[in-house]
Amino acid sequence: MNILDLPTPSLIVDRGRVIANTLAMRQRMNELGVTLRPHAKTAKSAAVARLAHGNENPQGGLTISTLAEAAYFLDHGFSDLVYAVCVAPAKLDSVSALRDRGAALKIITDNVDASQAIGAHPGSHEVLVEIDCGEHRTGVTADGPELLKIADAVAKSGRSKMAGVLTHAGHSYGSRNGREAADIAEAERAAAVQAASRLREAGHATPIISVGSTPTAMHARHLDGVTEARPGVYVFQDLFQAGIGSCGWEDMALSVLGSVIARHPARGTLMLDTGGLALSKDRSTAALDSDGDKGFGLICDATGGPLAGLHIAGVHQEHGEVKVDDPALFEKLPIGGKVRIFPNHACMTAAAYDTYHVVDGGMDIVDTWDRCNGW
Amino acid sequence: MNILDLPTPSLIVDRGRVIANTLAMRQRMNELGVTLRPHAKTAKSAAVARLAHGNENPQGGLTISTLAEAAYFLDHGFSDLVYAVCVAPAKLDSVSALRDRGAALKIITDNVDASQAIGAHPGSHEVLVEIDCGEHRTGVTADGPELLKIADAVAKSGRSKMAGVLTHAGHSYGSRNGREAADIAEAERAAAVQAASRLREAGHATPIISVGSTPTAMHARHLDGVTEARPGVYVFQDLFQAGIGSCGWEDMALSVLGSVIARHPARGTLMLDTGGLALSKDRSTAALDSDGDKGFGLICDATGGPLAGLHIAGVHQEHGEVKVDDPALFEKLPIGGKVRIFPNHACMTAAAYDTYHVVDGGMDIVDTWDRCNGW
Repeated sequence: MNILDLPTPSLIVDRGRVIANTLAMRQRMNELGVTLRPHAKTAKSAAVARLAHGNENPQGGLTISTLAEAAYFLDHGFSDLVYAVCVAPAKLDSVSALRDRGAALKIITDNVDASQAIGAHPGSHEVLVEIDCGEHRTGVTADGPELLKIADAVAKSGRSKMAGVLTHAGHSYGSRNGREAADIAEAERAAAVQAASRLREAGHATPIISVGSTPTAMHARHLDGVTEARPGVYVFQDLFQAGIGSCGWEDMALSVLGSVIARHPARGTLMLDTGGLALSKDRSTAALDSDGDKGFGLICDATGGPLAGLHIAGVHQEHGEVKVDDPALFEKLPIGGKVRIFPNHACMTAAAYDTYHVVDGGMDIVDTWDRCNGW
Repeated sequence: MNILDLPTPSLIVDRGRVIANTLAMRQRMNELGVTLRPHAKTAKSAAVARLAHGNENPQGGLTISTLAEAAYFLDHGFSDLVYAVCVAPAKLDSVSALRDRGAALKIITDNVDASQAIGAHPGSHEVLVEIDCGEHRTGVTADGPELLKIADAVAKSGRSKMAGVLTHAGHSYGSRNGREAADIAEAERAAAVQAASRLREAGHATPIISVGSTPTAMHARHLDGVTEARPGVYVFQDLFQAGIGSCGWEDMALSVLGSVIARHPARGTLMLDTGGLALSKDRSTAALDSDGDKGFGLICDATGGPLAGLHIAGVHQEHGEVKVDDPALFEKLPIGGKVRIFPNHACMTAAAYDTYHVVDGGMDIVDTWDRCNGW
């Protein structure tokens, strides 16, 4: 079957690019001397997780963002999981149930109240403390008093134990080149190592010292003292990552197949059946310079080849509006013509679909992969 | 079961508010003398569609935005359907298959190329021409030459036939009060009636003269000459509709249940487990004045009562960040505390979920409703 036979919109992934992206990251983590724990929240797919770990470690550790992912990946043989969103205490029963089913499911928190709830919970939990390394989203400071209070509260009852520290340099998305990303990677590394050192001095086990984002993983100068890294979007890459230098355009593996459904040469517009649901309303490339801003997605022809810089200028629920300044371009985009749209943010776009249609360089569908949505 | 027992994030809908919103719209359409064909793309739910039509017309006509909705609603006994997105010719086989299964599924187009494909297709189709009444998204002008060319191409083979005209005043979302919306409603009505008149003069049947959006349906002064209206979001309403005067705050029926997962009083921030996937990245209220801009959603307590004007200032995939200027508010939002977030745009937010948890004024779950996603 050829992708031109698919209904639109459909989600397309290029296996060769995923293999190249994941191989490059494994090599990079090897060079840096840390274990790779890919963040599965991007693809939410067992097939992609297997490619991410390669044959060397086919069911290696994963990072997850929902307990639905935990259940899904456990069902697919992945048991070493870090749930990298501060746990809500009401979820502890579900965490315990997953652990009872065989998941080495580790949880994180950044506050004393939740750690007290964890310590008091009848289950036996493994906990990482989330550290703020500069994004100021979640996490305690590496040098503040909460770190040890949290660890003490977790360990108090003796049922649960500390498993280490975790930090995410989300502010690396504000970097605009490799040097800036490398500087943030050093802040990420230093915060994790400092926090781990303080925990160890206080007598807490810290087997895991975890950092990670795609920009910092790609550009870190070294990760001395760190045990693992958790990049996520690198498996697919996207327009935003290309825009900040995490990858090249040719590395982007994920696209949405769409059809031309209306053409208005007199208005200089063209309409695709890929709207806000098919692409998401993510506008992360708006933060880049005008050359990097691709609206709601970059439009390529059905082979993935560029189409004169066209992008989706606006979205309605099921309509993607394209501004076409050059009348000659309308000839390349007849009614019913198929295009592929590369998204701003792969994680957000993929979430609208249950199935990846897999190609390998060409347009033949060589496989289909499922994914896990919801919570 | 109480909503406090649900995992977070979960989607909550208040049945009493849906009943009130849908009853009000039926009464309004009765007064205006037109048939109501609700746009089911908002709720994508048979239960909501039944409430929208009430006992008078339990399986009345619906508007849909995807062929997945067509199949879903046909399976639930709704056969009179208008697929209100310009059809891609490659979808005609699927349209025919649905018609063969009993769906009186009507399609729309705004261009000669697609209408030629429809006319040449072996199936027998019923077609509405989409008219542009001022939004300039899709549609031909009511007074231009394409209208008759499209109708002629549809009817050429004798297998397919014209069913009428359809227009959507999407620019009514740019109105900021009832008077402005009423003016746009008149433009919407006039365009549809003019186009229908021209088609009839040319000998084409036009049984359906269809207009519709929630703002114009709420504020139209009259709909003389129109046969049906297609409002959609009114079943749930949302922050944007409240902001432009389509409804009051107390009419909003849809919310997302979330939990507090991190608190940082020193930074003046608090984190919920309702991020960009749980709420969508829709920022439609950014177009309103500063009083109407609610970030990514308005935060209420678990009963739906307001929480001092707090809103979601920013979202990551699974994190919703709240700015909390008043330290006293942290006491109302402990770790694990549940809140309900009313979304900017109900259609976009609901699309992340498979299930509505139904309440009726209180916090007891009185029902669950499914919904249809994807394409």
